Amino acid sequence: MKYVSLLGATGSIGTQALQVIKEHPDQFRLCAISAGRNIDLVRKIISDFQPNLVAVLEKEDCERLKAEFPSGIKFTYGKHGLIEAAVHDQADIVLNAVMGSVGLVPTMHAIEAKKTIGLANKETLVTAGHIVMGAAKKFGVDILPVDSEHSAIFQCLQGESRENVSKLIITASGGSFRDLSREELKHVTRQQALKHPNWSMGSKITIDSATMMNKGLEVIEAHWLFHIPYENIEVLLHRESIIHSLVEYKDRSVIAQLGTPDMRIPIQYALTYPDRMKLVTKGLGLAEIGILHFEKMDMDRYRCLKLAYDAGMRGGTMPTVLNAANEVAVEAFLKEQISFLNIEELIEKALERHNVIDQPDLAAIEEVDRETRKHVYTLL
Amino acid sequence: MKYVSLLGATGSIGTQALQVIKEHPDQFRLCAISAGRNIDLVRKIISDFQPNLVAVLEKEDCERLKAEFPSGIKFTYGKHGLIEAAVHDQADIVLNAVMGSVGLVPTMHAIEAKKTIGLANKETLVTAGHIVMGAAKKFGVDILPVDSEHSAIFQCLQGESRENVSKLIITASGGSFRDLSREELKHVTRQQALKHPNWSMGSKITIDSATMMNKGLEVIEAHWLFHIPYENIEVLLHRESIIHSLVEYKDRSVIAQLGTPDMRIPIQYALTYPDRMKLVTKGLGLAEIGILHFEKMDMDRYRCLKLAYDAGMRGGTMPTVLNAANEVAVEAFLKEQISFLNIEELIEKALERHNVIDQPDLAAIEEVDRETRKHVYTLL
Repeated sequence: MKYVSLLGATGSIGTQALQVIKEHPDQFRLCAISAGRNIDLVRKIISDFQPNLVAVLEKEDCERLKAEFPSGIKFTYGKHGLIEAAVHDQADIVLNAVMGSVGLVPTMHAIEAKKTIGLANKETLVTAGHIVMGAAKKFGVDILPVDSEHSAIFQCLQGESRENVSKLIITASGGSFRDLSREELKHVTRQQALKHPNWSMGSKITIDSATMMNKGLEVIEAHWLFHIPYENIEVLLHRESIIHSLVEYKDRSVIAQLGTPDMRIPIQYALTYPDRMKLVTKGLGLAEIGILHFEKMDMDRYRCLKLAYDAGMRGGTMPTVLNAANEVAVEAFLKEQISFLNIEELIEKALERHNVIDQPDLAAIEEVDRETRKHVYTLL
Repeated sequence: MKYVSLLGATGSIGTQALQVIKEHPDQFRLCAISAGRNIDLVRKIISDFQPNLVAVLEKEDCERLKAEFPSGIKFTYGKHGLIEAAVHDQADIVLNAVMGSVGLVPTMHAIEAKKTIGLANKETLVTAGHIVMGAAKKFGVDILPVDSEHSAIFQCLQGESRENVSKLIITASGGSFRDLSREELKHVTRQQALKHPNWSMGSKITIDSATMMNKGLEVIEAHWLFHIPYENIEVLLHRESIIHSLVEYKDRSVIAQLGTPDMRIPIQYALTYPDRMKLVTKGLGLAEIGILHFEKMDMDRYRCLKLAYDAGMRGGTMPTVLNAANEVAVEAFLKEQISFLNIEELIEKALERHNVIDQPDLAAIEEVDRETRKHVYTLL
């Protein structure tokens, strides 16, 4: 029996993780969850899974739940609550599916508590890859990727030696606007941007897919997860999202992971690793799909990807700025305060004015994150 | 330093294996070879690699070479010579790239001599899979596939547990005649059949590609190599031969191996396994390739594949008959004695009249092989 603490239980990854846990009651037990403000869903999770600890964002929600569930469940809230969930005594694995850079601190606490980490939170590695991977090494903790691309790469690396890797190839569907020119991008709306062609995901990540920042963050994440230099990480346009990513070895043999676009596959893999378990989902029918397309990535068309590569290669606090500026800009776009192309402009401005701190500690990262957000708000 | 005995050194796989060995003089040393009648090439191999033992098919060629190379090289010939090469004292790995069912006996001797086997000879497993795999298990010997499809599957299985495999998917280019109807197949010539769209191979295997018997033999081989029931082995038409094969796991995650059509990749992998080494060859450029196609395999169109599945599932000496009849029929087609569609007819006739022996020993297999050939000759 594996005990799971699930951070971000009410989000897109969180709810799919709950499906996986529910399917295998003999294998998994949900011992702790964290959630934001979706208290109705929290109530349902409590009824279905009876976790021992529940952390929510707001104090008043916490008090309300305490009154409603007078049993032995511990309720907590805020940043501290999130950390409590991350270090929960019973947890064997902490599945971090919270959104945004708020996921960093609980990850660090979970690593120090020697929990295996299932990581669906990109920002953890983007903003503090050197600290997180250093701590994981120090405490002997596995960081298991949950993102479909990183899970693909991780699966392709099984049984192989890292020194034999010559290249990681991360596939990108191209997002909602892949068939539009830059000229046409000027007038796209929030509603159009939210229609992802292949995956059903949260709204932030769907916008990140459309700008290709999602892939940029993934490149930085892959760099840290797999210790591969940026020069050896490629992004390949593959509109069907059937090949989730590939690894080229130095003998030019390429290993790829494929599947239907079902996030439960990488979620379950992180939970069962290094084993696998049956998953009831549609099998991959390549004959029915018939054709797979591949195109070279155009860095001019997808400027956010270029910005991400540059920020990653520059290192230090640069990726923190990239990520913070992107979060504020995407939020503003979702609120219809700015246009789609304003997103990349705001990020570029934030990056340009930043004085990089090399080898930043967590406090410096948090300060740069805060300061960047404040600055980008003034630009809206 | 790994010492290699190369059986079938002058064939298509053999010469490519020699290229790999030559590229890595610090890693590999050719200690023994066997060859048929291509004595000019044998002379060149002796000059280039200085093997300690050379086995050829004919006694007179052996005598001639002895006179030409009076140094410390041992020359031998015939079936016995082939076995001597297979059990050569120095050899760490025996790369069996001989053509046809003559490859079986030296493989068995090499296994008993506890040599690692690099297996490019399909017939070894097709005709005697139960005996060969049983012996490999008994003597603790690795059977490393060299065929591109089996090497692909083998690579996709690294770091995974066999119990988690739900399906093997072997890809097939469709061969020279993939765009012809059965009606059109009636009039195809030897020359047309020998033009394989993707791979440069020997003539026997190129014809086997056109009839799809090659894939049928590969299905039987995969069954034995990977202990997967026939119901869970699928053949997928994939004209570009870029995905060399795939493995589906029970969580519906699919791992694939891809590459340019360069046999040196699987040859070198067998030689370096479980490690990999740099290979100077064109990398896989998926963006340049642009499109990959997949089609359902049509068992009526490719009757030889159906015959192979049936023979494999029936088991016993049935695959021996399939293989022996196919060898004679293909030889006759190459000599322009029979038409292309006669190949499958001859095989079907041979299979129909055969009384299966279950769990045959090597003697029974050899007898059925001989008897089948004799019978098919009478049908020409």
